[in-house]
Amino acid sequence: MVFRVDRRVRFADVDAAGIVFYPRYFEMINACIEDWFEAGLGYGFDAMIVKGHHAVPLANIEVDFKAPSRLDDELAFKLVVNEVGRSSFKLTIKAWHEDEVRMIARAVLVYIDAEKHAPERIPEILRAKMLTFQEVT
Amino acid sequence: MVFRVDRRVRFADVDAAGIVFYPRYFEMINACIEDWFEAGLGYGFDAMIVKGHHAVPLANIEVDFKAPSRLDDELAFKLVVNEVGRSSFKLTIKAWHEDEVRMIARAVLVYIDAEKHAPERIPEILRAKMLTFQEVT
Amino acid sequence: MVFRVDRRVRFADVDAAGIVFYPRYFEMINACIEDWFEAGLGYGFDAMIVKGHHAVPLANIEVDFKAPSRLDDELAFKLVVNEVGRSSFKLTIKAWHEDEVRMIARAVLVYIDAEKHAPERIPEILRAKMLTFQEVT
Amino acid sequence: MVFRVDRRVRFADVDAAGIVFYPRYFEMINACIEDWFEAGLGYGFDAMIVKGHHAVPLANIEVDFKAPSRLDDELAFKLVVNEVGRSSFKLTIKAWHEDEVRMIARAVLVYIDAEKHAPERIPEILRAKMLTFQEVT
Repeated sequence: MVFRVDRRVRFADVDAAGIVFYPRYFEMINACIEDWFEAGLGYGFDAMIVKGHHAVPLANIEVDFKAPSRLDDELAFKLVVNEVGRSSFKLTIKAWHEDEVRMIARAVLVYIDAEKHAPERIPEILRAKMLTFQEVT
Repeated sequence: MVFRVDRRVRFADVDAAGIVFYPRYFEMINACIEDWFEAGLGYGFDAMIVKGHHAVPLANIEVDFKAPSRLDDELAFKLVVNEVGRSSFKLTIKAWHEDEVRMIARAVLVYIDAEKHAPERIPEILRAKMLTFQEVT
Repeated sequence: MVFRVDRRVRFADVDAAGIVFYPRYFEMINACIEDWFEAGLGYGFDAMIVKGHHAVPLANIEVDFKAPSRLDDELAFKLVVNEVGRSSFKLTIKAWHEDEVRMIARAVLVYIDAEKHAPERIPEILRAKMLTFQEVT
Repeated sequence: MVFRVDRRVRFADVDAAGIVFYPRYFEMINACIEDWFEAGLGYGFDAMIVKGHHAVPLANIEVDFKAPSRLDDELAFKLVVNEVGRSSFKLTIKAWHEDEVRMIARAVLVYIDAEKHAPERIPEILRAKMLTFQEVT
Protein backbone atom coordinates (compact mmCIF):
# COMPACT_ATOMS: atom_id res chain seq x y z
CA MET A 1 0.00 0.00 0.00
CA VAL A 2 1.24 3.49 -0.82
CA PHE A 3 0.42 6.47 1.41
CA ARG A 4 -0.21 9.61 -0.58
CA VAL A 5 -0.50 13.29 0.35
CA ASP A 6 -1.08 16.06 -2.17
CA ARG A 7 0.57 19.40 -1.57
CA ARG A 8 0.67 22.45 -3.73
CA VAL A 9 3.71 24.70 -3.87
CA ARG A 10 2.76 27.95 -2.16
CA PHE A 11 4.35 31.39 -2.22
CA ALA A 12 6.01 30.75 1.15
CA ASP A 13 7.83 27.74 -0.35
CA VAL A 14 9.69 29.45 -3.17
CA ASP A 15 12.91 31.43 -3.06
CA ALA A 16 14.23 34.45 -4.92
CA ALA A 17 15.02 32.20 -7.89
CA GLY A 18 11.33 31.20 -8.06
CA ILE A 19 11.87 27.54 -7.15
CA VAL A 20 11.15 25.60 -3.98
CA PHE A 21 13.66 26.52 -1.27
CA TYR A 22 14.96 23.09 -0.28
CA PRO A 23 14.52 23.40 3.51
CA ARG A 24 10.79 23.68 2.69
CA TYR A 25 10.97 20.22 1.08
CA PHE A 26 11.98 18.85 4.47
CA GLU A 27 8.93 20.49 6.03
CA MET A 28 6.83 18.80 3.36
CA ILE A 29 8.56 15.46 4.05
CA ASN A 30 7.93 15.93 7.77
CA ALA A 31 4.26 16.80 7.12
CA CYS A 32 3.92 13.68 4.94
CA ILE A 33 5.30 11.47 7.72
CA GLU A 34 3.04 13.26 10.24
CA ASP A 35 -0.02 12.62 8.06
CA TRP A 36 1.03 9.00 7.55
CA PHE A 37 1.29 8.43 11.30
CA GLU A 38 -2.17 9.85 11.79
CA ALA A 39 -4.15 8.72 8.78
CA GLY A 40 -2.10 5.66 7.84
CA LEU A 41 -1.02 4.26 11.21
CA GLY A 42 -3.71 5.68 13.49
CA TYR A 43 -1.12 7.15 15.86
CA GLY A 44 -0.97 10.93 15.36
CA PHE A 45 1.86 13.17 16.55
CA ASP A 46 -0.38 14.72 19.21
CA ALA A 47 -1.04 11.27 20.72
CA MET A 48 2.55 10.08 20.22
CA ILE A 49 4.65 13.16 20.97
CA VAL A 50 2.62 15.68 22.98
CA LYS A 51 0.59 13.25 25.07
CA GLY A 52 2.58 10.02 24.70
CA HIS A 53 6.15 11.30 25.20
CA HIS A 54 7.49 9.27 22.30
CA ALA A 55 8.95 10.58 19.09
CA VAL A 56 10.33 9.41 15.75
CA PRO A 57 13.40 11.56 15.03
CA LEU A 58 15.31 11.17 11.80
CA ALA A 59 18.55 9.21 12.13
CA ASN A 60 19.51 9.55 8.48
CA ILE A 61 18.05 10.97 5.31
CA GLU A 62 19.24 10.96 1.75
CA VAL A 63 17.51 13.10 -0.81
CA ASP A 64 17.88 13.34 -4.58
CA PHE A 65 16.53 16.49 -6.13
CA LYS A 66 15.63 15.49 -9.67
CA ALA A 67 13.97 18.61 -11.05
CA PRO A 68 12.94 21.99 -9.63
CA SER A 69 9.38 22.76 -8.51
CA ARG A 70 7.74 26.12 -8.99
CA LEU A 71 4.89 28.16 -7.51
CA ASP A 72 1.50 26.43 -7.83
CA ASP A 73 2.96 23.08 -8.92
CA GLU A 74 0.81 20.26 -7.59
CA LEU A 75 3.01 17.70 -5.86
CA ALA A 76 1.98 14.19 -4.86
CA PHE A 77 4.07 12.80 -2.01
CA LYS A 78 4.05 9.00 -2.04
CA LEU A 79 5.40 7.12 0.96
CA VAL A 80 6.26 3.43 1.23
CA VAL A 81 7.96 1.41 3.96
CA ASN A 82 11.17 -0.41 3.03
CA GLU A 83 12.03 -2.09 6.29
CA VAL A 84 10.92 -2.22 9.91
CA GLY A 85 13.58 -3.15 12.46
CA ARG A 86 13.47 -3.42 16.24
CA SER A 87 13.31 0.30 16.88
CA SER A 88 14.11 1.85 13.51
CA PHE A 89 12.30 1.88 10.18
CA LYS A 90 13.12 2.90 6.64
CA LEU A 91 10.86 4.89 4.35
CA THR A 92 11.02 6.08 0.77
CA ILE A 93 9.09 9.23 -0.11
CA LYS A 94 8.85 10.42 -3.69
CA ALA A 95 7.40 13.74 -4.75
CA TRP A 96 5.76 13.57 -8.16
CA HIS A 97 4.45 16.32 -10.38
CA GLU A 98 2.26 14.56 -12.90
CA ASP A 99 4.55 11.81 -14.28
CA GLU A 100 7.83 13.47 -13.32
CA VAL A 101 9.67 12.60 -10.11
CA ARG A 102 10.88 15.80 -8.51
CA MET A 103 12.44 14.42 -5.35
CA ILE A 104 13.29 11.06 -3.80
CA ALA A 105 13.93 10.84 -0.07
CA ARG A 106 15.15 7.76 1.74
CA ALA A 107 14.82 8.14 5.49
CA VAL A 108 15.68 6.12 8.57
CA LEU A 109 13.66 7.05 11.64
CA VAL A 110 13.93 5.75 15.17
CA TYR A 111 11.12 5.20 17.63
CA ILE A 112 12.28 6.68 20.92
CA ASP A 113 11.25 7.45 24.45
CA ALA A 114 11.33 11.24 24.17
CA GLU A 115 12.09 11.76 27.85
CA LYS A 116 15.24 9.60 27.86
CA HIS A 117 15.87 10.22 24.15
CA ALA A 118 16.58 6.47 23.90
CA PRO A 119 15.48 3.98 21.20
CA GLU A 120 12.58 1.77 22.17
CA ARG A 121 11.07 -1.35 20.61
CA ILE A 122 8.35 -0.41 18.12
CA PRO A 123 5.04 -1.65 19.61
CA GLU A 124 3.69 -4.71 17.75
CA ILE A 125 0.46 -3.01 16.73
CA LEU A 126 2.40 -0.11 15.21
CA ARG A 127 4.83 -2.46 13.45
CA ALA A 128 1.96 -4.45 11.93
CA LYS A 129 0.38 -1.25 10.63
CA MET A 130 3.70 -0.06 9.21
CA LEU A 131 4.17 -3.33 7.36
CA THR A 132 0.92 -2.82 5.46
CA PHE A 133 2.77 0.00 3.66
CA GLN A 134 5.77 -2.17 2.81
CA GLU A 135 6.66 -2.25 -0.83
CA VAL A 136 7.77 -5.65 -2.06
CA THR A 137 10.57 -5.20 -4.56
CA MET B 1 41.11 25.17 5.11
CA VAL B 2 37.87 24.74 7.01
CA PHE B 3 35.06 27.29 6.77
CA ARG B 4 33.29 27.80 10.07
CA VAL B 5 30.05 29.49 11.08
CA ASP B 6 28.73 29.59 14.62
CA ARG B 7 25.00 29.43 15.15
CA ARG B 8 23.05 29.22 18.33
CA VAL B 9 19.85 27.22 18.57
CA ARG B 10 17.01 29.72 18.91
CA PHE B 11 13.44 29.32 20.08
CA ALA B 12 12.21 29.31 16.47
CA ASP B 13 14.37 26.22 15.77
CA VAL B 14 12.95 23.86 18.36
CA ASP B 15 9.82 21.76 18.20
CA ALA B 16 7.24 20.65 20.74
CA ALA B 17 9.69 17.98 21.97
CA GLY B 18 12.22 20.72 22.76
CA ILE B 19 14.79 19.65 20.14
CA VAL B 20 15.79 21.17 16.82
CA PHE B 21 13.07 20.56 14.24
CA TYR B 22 15.08 18.96 11.43
CA PRO B 23 13.86 21.15 8.55
CA ARG B 24 15.55 23.97 10.47
CA TYR B 25 18.87 22.12 10.17
CA PHE B 26 18.55 22.46 6.41
CA GLU B 27 18.05 26.20 6.79
CA MET B 28 21.23 26.26 8.88
CA ILE B 29 23.06 24.20 6.24
CA ASN B 30 21.82 26.57 3.55
CA ALA B 31 22.93 29.60 5.58
CA CYS B 32 26.36 28.00 6.09
CA ILE B 33 26.76 27.50 2.32
CA GLU B 34 25.49 31.06 1.73
CA ASP B 35 28.06 32.44 4.19
CA TRP B 36 30.79 30.31 2.61
CA PHE B 37 30.04 31.67 -0.85
CA GLU B 38 30.23 35.20 0.45
CA ALA B 39 32.98 35.16 3.05
CA GLY B 40 34.92 32.14 1.80
CA LEU B 41 34.60 32.38 -1.98
CA GLY B 42 33.93 36.10 -2.41
CA TYR B 43 30.82 35.43 -4.51
CA GLY B 44 27.72 36.15 -2.41
CA PHE B 45 24.20 34.95 -3.21
CA ASP B 46 23.09 38.49 -4.04
CA ALA B 47 25.84 38.78 -6.69
CA MET B 48 25.38 35.19 -7.90
CA ILE B 49 21.60 34.64 -7.75
CA VAL B 50 19.80 37.98 -7.64
CA LYS B 51 22.12 39.97 -9.89
CA GLY B 52 24.06 37.21 -11.69
CA HIS B 53 21.24 34.79 -12.60
CA HIS B 54 23.22 31.77 -11.54
CA ALA B 55 22.44 29.41 -8.69
CA VAL B 56 23.81 26.38 -6.84
CA PRO B 57 20.86 24.09 -6.17
CA LEU B 58 21.31 20.86 -4.25
CA ALA B 59 21.40 17.76 -6.40
CA ASN B 60 21.78 15.35 -3.50
CA ILE B 61 22.20 15.52 0.25
CA GLU B 62 22.75 12.87 2.85
CA VAL B 63 22.49 13.76 6.50
CA ASP B 64 23.28 11.78 9.64
CA PHE B 65 21.69 13.08 12.79
CA LYS B 66 24.02 11.92 15.55
CA ALA B 67 22.54 13.57 18.63
CA PRO B 68 19.73 16.03 19.34
CA SER B 69 20.34 19.76 19.82
CA ARG B 70 18.39 21.87 22.27
CA LEU B 71 17.50 25.52 22.85
CA ASP B 72 20.56 27.74 23.34
CA ASP B 73 23.07 25.07 22.26
CA GLU B 74 26.01 26.70 20.50
CA LEU B 75 26.65 24.91 17.22
CA ALA B 76 29.75 25.27 15.07
CA PHE B 77 29.13 24.42 11.41
CA LYS B 78 32.34 23.36 9.70
CA LEU B 79 32.42 23.07 5.93
CA VAL B 80 35.06 21.44 3.75
CA VAL B 81 35.17 20.69 0.02
CA ASN B 82 35.55 17.06 -1.02
CA GLU B 83 35.60 17.37 -4.77
CA VAL B 84 35.10 19.92 -7.50
CA GLY B 85 33.94 18.60 -10.88
CA ARG B 86 33.09 20.36 -14.12
CA SER B 87 29.82 21.84 -12.89
CA SER B 88 29.17 20.05 -9.61
CA PHE B 89 30.96 20.04 -6.27
CA LYS B 90 30.79 18.00 -3.09
CA LEU B 91 30.82 19.41 0.42
CA THR B 92 30.84 17.96 3.90
CA ILE B 93 29.31 20.05 6.66
CA LYS B 94 29.50 18.95 10.27
CA ALA B 95 27.67 20.62 13.13
CA TRP B 96 29.59 20.39 16.38
CA HIS B 97 28.53 21.25 19.91
CA GLU B 98 31.75 21.42 21.88
CA ASP B 99 33.45 18.10 21.05
CA GLU B 100 30.30 16.24 20.03
CA VAL B 101 29.25 15.93 16.39
CA ARG B 102 25.53 16.56 16.17
CA MET B 103 25.02 16.30 12.42
CA ILE B 104 27.02 15.34 9.34
CA ALA B 105 25.78 16.46 5.94
CA ARG B 106 27.29 15.42 2.61
CA ALA B 107 25.96 17.51 -0.23
CA VAL B 108 26.37 17.65 -3.99
CA LEU B 109 25.55 21.02 -5.52
CA VAL B 110 25.46 22.06 -9.14
CA TYR B 111 26.43 25.41 -10.58
CA ILE B 112 23.69 26.37 -13.01
CA ASP B 113 22.45 29.08 -15.28
CA ALA B 114 19.29 29.96 -13.34
CA GLU B 115 17.39 31.17 -16.39
CA LYS B 116 17.80 27.91 -18.37
CA HIS B 117 18.12 25.83 -15.17
CA ALA B 118 21.04 24.06 -16.91
CA PRO B 119 24.45 23.05 -15.46
CA GLU B 120 27.31 25.30 -16.41
CA ARG B 121 31.08 24.97 -16.09
CA ILE B 122 32.26 26.38 -12.74
CA PRO B 123 34.33 29.50 -13.55
CA GLU B 124 38.07 28.91 -13.00
CA ILE B 125 38.39 31.63 -10.40
CA LEU B 126 35.55 30.11 -8.38
CA ARG B 127 36.96 26.59 -8.74
CA ALA B 128 40.36 27.78 -7.51
CA LYS B 129 38.78 29.39 -4.45
CA MET B 130 36.72 26.28 -3.75
CA LEU B 131 39.83 24.12 -3.85
CA THR B 132 41.42 26.13 -1.04
CA PHE B 133 38.77 24.54 1.21
CA GLN B 134 39.52 21.00 0.01
CA GLU B 135 40.26 18.56 2.74
CA VAL B 136 43.00 16.10 1.92
CA THR B 137 42.10 12.70 3.33
CA MET C 1 -19.41 37.16 0.86
CA VAL C 2 -16.83 35.60 3.19
CA PHE C 3 -13.76 33.79 1.87
CA ARG C 4 -12.87 30.77 3.96
CA VAL C 5 -9.82 28.51 4.14
CA ASP C 6 -9.48 25.62 6.57
CA ARG C 7 -6.06 24.89 8.00
CA ARG C 8 -5.04 22.40 10.59
CA VAL C 9 -2.29 23.13 13.07
CA ARG C 10 0.64 20.88 12.14
CA PHE C 11 3.73 19.85 14.09
CA ALA C 12 5.83 22.42 12.21
CA ASP C 13 3.58 25.20 13.54
CA VAL C 14 3.97 24.62 17.27
CA ASP C 15 6.75 25.74 19.56
CA ALA C 16 8.41 24.25 22.61
CA ALA C 17 5.42 25.36 24.72
CA GLY C 18 3.13 23.29 22.49
CA ILE C 19 1.22 26.26 21.03
CA VAL C 20 1.33 27.89 17.60
CA PHE C 21 4.53 29.89 17.20
CA TYR C 22 3.15 33.28 16.15
CA PRO C 23 5.33 33.85 13.08
CA ARG C 24 3.56 30.78 11.69
CA TYR C 25 0.22 32.63 12.04
CA PHE C 26 1.56 35.18 9.59
CA GLU C 27 2.39 32.41 7.14
CA MET C 28 -1.19 31.18 7.54
CA ILE C 29 -2.51 34.73 7.01
CA ASN C 30 -0.34 35.05 3.91
CA ALA C 31 -1.55 31.69 2.59
CA CYS C 32 -5.16 32.78 3.20
CA ILE C 33 -4.63 35.97 1.18
CA GLU C 34 -2.83 33.94 -1.53
CA ASP C 35 -5.76 31.52 -1.74
CA TRP C 36 -8.24 34.42 -1.81
CA PHE C 37 -6.43 36.03 -4.73
CA GLU C 38 -6.52 32.80 -6.64
CA ALA C 39 -9.85 31.21 -5.76
CA GLY C 40 -11.75 34.35 -4.75
CA LEU C 41 -10.43 36.98 -7.15
CA GLY C 42 -9.22 34.80 -10.03
CA TYR C 43 -5.77 36.43 -9.99
CA GLY C 44 -3.28 34.02 -8.44
CA PHE C 45 0.16 34.98 -7.11
CA ASP C 46 1.86 33.15 -9.99
CA ALA C 47 -0.04 35.29 -12.53
CA MET C 48 0.29 38.47 -10.45
CA ILE C 49 3.79 38.26 -8.97
CA VAL C 50 5.90 35.78 -10.93
CA LYS C 51 4.50 36.46 -14.41
CA GLY C 52 2.78 39.84 -13.93
CA HIS C 53 5.43 41.75 -11.94
CA HIS C 54 2.87 43.16 -9.53
CA ALA C 55 2.60 42.46 -5.82
CA VAL C 56 0.44 43.21 -2.79
CA PRO C 57 2.82 43.85 0.11
CA LEU C 58 1.49 44.55 3.59
CA ALA C 59 1.59 48.20 4.58
CA ASN C 60 0.15 47.64 8.06
CA ILE C 61 -1.18 44.76 10.10
CA GLU C 62 -2.72 44.60 13.54
CA VAL C 63 -3.31 41.25 15.15
CA ASP C 64 -5.13 40.28 18.34
CA PHE C 65 -4.27 36.88 19.69
CA LYS C 66 -7.36 35.83 21.64
CA ALA C 67 -6.55 32.28 22.65
CA PRO C 68 -3.74 29.81 21.95
CA SER C 69 -4.00 27.09 19.30
CA ARG C 70 -2.49 23.66 19.72
CA LEU C 71 -1.35 20.75 17.56
CA ASP C 72 -4.15 19.30 15.39
CA ASP C 73 -6.60 22.15 16.09
CA GLU C 74 -8.75 22.76 13.04
CA LEU C 75 -8.73 26.46 12.21
CA ALA C 76 -11.11 28.23 9.83
CA PHE C 77 -9.65 31.44 8.41
CA LYS C 78 -12.43 33.81 7.32
CA LEU C 79 -11.53 36.83 5.22
CA VAL C 80 -13.69 39.86 4.43
CA VAL C 81 -12.93 43.13 2.70
CA ASN C 82 -13.45 46.33 4.68
CA GLU C 83 -12.50 48.94 2.17
CA VAL C 84 -10.99 49.28 -1.29
CA GLY C 85 -9.16 52.52 -2.03
CA ARG C 86 -7.29 53.71 -5.10
CA SER C 87 -4.29 51.43 -4.62
CA SER C 88 -4.74 50.06 -1.11
CA PHE C 89 -7.32 47.77 0.45
CA LYS C 90 -8.26 46.69 3.97
CA LEU C 91 -9.03 43.15 5.03
CA THR C 92 -10.12 41.47 8.23
CA ILE C 93 -9.13 37.86 8.74
CA LYS C 94 -10.37 35.89 11.71
CA ALA C 95 -9.17 32.44 12.67
CA TRP C 96 -11.87 30.37 14.33
CA HIS C 97 -11.68 27.06 16.11
CA GLU C 98 -15.25 25.85 16.33
CA ASP C 99 -17.09 28.85 17.88
CA GLU C 100 -14.03 30.44 19.47
CA VAL C 101 -12.09 33.25 17.77
CA ARG C 102 -8.39 32.55 18.12
CA MET C 103 -6.96 35.47 16.17
CA ILE C 104 -8.19 38.65 14.49
CA ALA C 105 -5.98 40.33 11.91
CA ARG C 106 -6.69 43.67 10.28
CA ALA C 107 -4.43 44.29 7.32
CA VAL C 108 -3.81 47.06 4.83
CA LEU C 109 -2.23 45.92 1.59
CA VAL C 110 -1.07 47.95 -1.37
CA TYR C 111 -1.22 46.98 -5.01
CA ILE C 112 2.17 47.83 -6.50
CA ASP C 113 4.27 47.63 -9.58
CA ALA C 114 6.91 45.22 -8.24
CA GLU C 115 9.65 46.48 -10.52
CA LYS C 116 9.38 50.14 -9.38
CA HIS C 117 8.00 49.13 -5.96
CA ALA C 118 5.44 51.93 -6.44
CA PRO C 119 1.67 51.93 -5.69
CA GLU C 120 -0.56 51.51 -8.71
CA ARG C 121 -4.29 51.94 -9.25
CA ILE C 122 -6.11 48.67 -8.57
CA PRO C 123 -7.50 47.50 -11.95
CA GLU C 124 -11.31 47.91 -12.16
CA ILE C 125 -11.97 44.21 -12.71
CA LEU C 126 -9.94 43.35 -9.60
CA ARG C 127 -11.64 46.09 -7.53
CA ALA C 128 -15.08 44.81 -8.56
CA LYS C 129 -14.15 41.27 -7.51
CA MET C 130 -12.74 42.52 -4.19
CA LEU C 131 -15.97 44.39 -3.44
CA THR C 132 -17.98 41.16 -3.67
CA PHE C 133 -16.21 40.20 -0.42
CA GLN C 134 -17.05 43.47 1.31
CA GLU C 135 -18.79 43.09 4.61
CA VAL C 136 -21.50 45.65 5.25
CA THR C 137 -21.48 46.62 8.89
CA MET D 1 18.27 52.34 27.37
CA VAL D 2 17.72 50.84 23.93
CA PHE D 3 18.28 47.13 23.27
CA ARG D 4 19.78 46.50 19.86
CA VAL D 5 20.26 43.39 17.74
CA ASP D 6 21.80 43.38 14.28
CA ARG D 7 20.48 40.97 11.73
CA ARG D 8 21.32 40.61 8.11
CA VAL D 9 18.72 39.63 5.54
CA ARG D 10 19.57 36.11 4.39
CA PHE D 11 18.48 34.12 1.35
CA ALA D 12 15.94 32.21 3.45
CA ASP D 13 14.21 35.50 4.33
CA VAL D 14 13.38 36.72 0.84
CA ASP D 15 10.52 35.76 -1.42
CA ALA D 16 10.12 35.33 -5.17
CA ALA D 17 9.87 39.14 -5.50
CA GLY D 18 13.32 39.46 -3.87
CA ILE D 19 12.11 41.23 -0.73
CA VAL D 20 11.73 40.02 2.85
CA PHE D 21 8.73 37.70 3.14
CA TYR D 22 6.82 39.36 5.98
CA PRO D 23 6.28 36.27 8.15
CA ARG D 24 10.07 36.24 8.43
CA TYR D 25 9.92 39.72 10.01
CA PHE D 26 7.92 38.19 12.83
CA GLU D 27 10.62 35.57 13.33
CA MET D 28 13.13 38.42 13.53
CA ILE D 29 10.89 40.29 16.01
CA ASN D 30 10.58 37.12 18.08
CA ALA D 31 14.35 36.60 17.99
CA CYS D 32 14.88 40.21 19.09
CA ILE D 33 12.56 39.74 22.09
CA GLU D 34 14.28 36.40 22.86
CA ASP D 35 17.71 38.09 22.81
CA TRP D 36 16.40 40.95 24.95
CA PHE D 37 15.12 38.53 27.58
CA GLU D 38 18.48 36.83 27.70
CA ALA D 39 21.02 39.58 27.24
CA GLY D 40 18.93 42.52 28.44
CA LEU D 41 16.84 41.04 31.24
CA GLY D 42 19.01 38.08 32.27
CA TYR D 43 16.09 35.65 31.94
CA GLY D 44 16.53 33.60 28.77
CA PHE D 45 13.78 31.60 27.07
CA ASP D 46 15.41 28.32 28.10
CA ALA D 47 15.24 29.35 31.77
CA MET D 48 11.78 30.93 31.43
CA ILE D 49 9.94 28.61 29.04
CA VAL D 50 11.67 25.23 28.88
CA LYS D 51 12.79 24.98 32.52
CA GLY D 52 10.57 27.61 34.19
CA HIS D 53 7.18 26.82 32.62
CA HIS D 54 6.40 30.48 32.03
CA ALA D 55 6.00 32.23 28.71
CA VAL D 56 5.41 35.67 27.20
CA PRO D 57 2.92 35.18 24.36
CA LEU D 58 1.88 38.10 22.18
CA ALA D 59 -1.55 39.50 23.01
CA ASN D 60 -1.48 42.14 20.29
CA ILE D 61 0.92 43.41 17.67
CA GLU D 62 0.69 46.24 15.19
CA VAL D 63 3.29 46.55 12.50
CA ASP D 64 3.95 49.27 9.93
CA PHE D 65 6.03 48.23 6.97
CA LYS D 66 7.70 51.42 5.80
CA ALA D 67 10.02 50.21 3.07
CA PRO D 68 11.04 46.84 1.65
CA SER D 69 14.25 45.06 2.69
CA ARG D 70 16.35 43.03 0.29
CA LEU D 71 18.95 40.25 0.42
CA ASP D 72 22.07 41.19 2.39
CA ASP D 73 20.55 44.38 3.87
CA GLU D 74 21.93 44.95 7.35
CA LEU D 75 19.05 45.58 9.75
CA ALA D 76 19.35 46.99 13.26
CA PHE D 77 16.44 46.01 15.49
CA LYS D 78 16.02 48.51 18.34
CA LEU D 79 13.71 47.65 21.21
CA VAL D 80 12.36 49.94 23.92
CA VAL D 81 9.78 49.42 26.65
CA ASN D 82 6.73 51.68 26.62
CA GLU D 83 4.86 50.41 29.64
CA VAL D 84 4.96 47.66 32.22
CA GLY D 85 1.63 46.68 33.78
CA ARG D 86 0.73 44.02 36.31
CA SER D 87 1.18 41.09 33.95
CA SER D 88 1.45 42.71 30.54
CA PHE D 89 4.06 44.98 28.95
CA LYS D 90 4.31 47.06 25.83
CA LEU D 91 7.32 47.21 23.53
CA THR D 92 8.24 49.14 20.42
CA ILE D 93 10.69 47.53 18.02
CA LYS D 94 12.01 49.39 15.02
CA ALA D 95 14.08 47.86 12.25
CA TRP D 96 16.52 50.32 10.74
CA HIS D 97 18.69 50.04 7.66
CA GLU D 98 21.24 52.82 8.01
CA ASP D 99 19.05 55.90 8.65
CA GLU D 100 15.87 54.51 7.13
CA VAL D 101 13.16 52.90 9.25
CA ARG D 102 11.99 49.76 7.51
CA MET D 103 9.48 48.49 10.05
CA ILE D 104 7.87 49.62 13.30
CA ALA D 105 6.25 47.05 15.57
CA ARG D 106 4.24 47.82 18.68
CA ALA D 107 3.62 44.75 20.75
CA VAL D 108 1.75 43.83 23.91
CA LEU D 109 2.99 40.68 25.61
CA VAL D 110 1.66 38.91 28.65
CA TYR D 111 3.65 37.07 31.29
CA ILE D 112 1.87 33.79 31.89
CA ASP D 113 2.03 30.51 33.71
CA ALA D 114 2.48 28.27 30.68
CA GLU D 115 0.87 25.26 32.32
CA LYS D 116 -2.42 27.04 33.14
CA HIS D 117 -2.00 29.49 30.27
CA ALA D 118 -3.06 32.21 32.74
CA PRO D 119 -1.59 35.71 33.26
CA GLU D 120 0.67 36.08 36.26
CA ARG D 121 2.14 39.07 38.04
CA ILE D 122 5.51 40.01 36.52
CA PRO D 123 8.14 39.30 39.23
CA GLU D 124 9.55 42.52 40.74
CA ILE D 125 13.10 41.79 39.68
CA LEU D 126 12.00 41.29 36.08
CA ARG D 127 9.83 44.43 36.15
CA ALA D 128 12.74 46.49 37.45
CA LYS D 129 14.98 45.21 34.67
CA MET D 130 12.31 45.90 32.06
CA LEU D 131 11.95 49.47 33.27
CA THR D 132 15.63 50.16 32.57
CA PHE D 133 14.66 49.91 28.88
CA GLN D 134 11.76 52.33 29.22
CA GLU D 135 11.87 55.21 26.81
CA VAL D 136 10.74 58.49 28.32
CA THR D 137 8.88 60.48 25.70
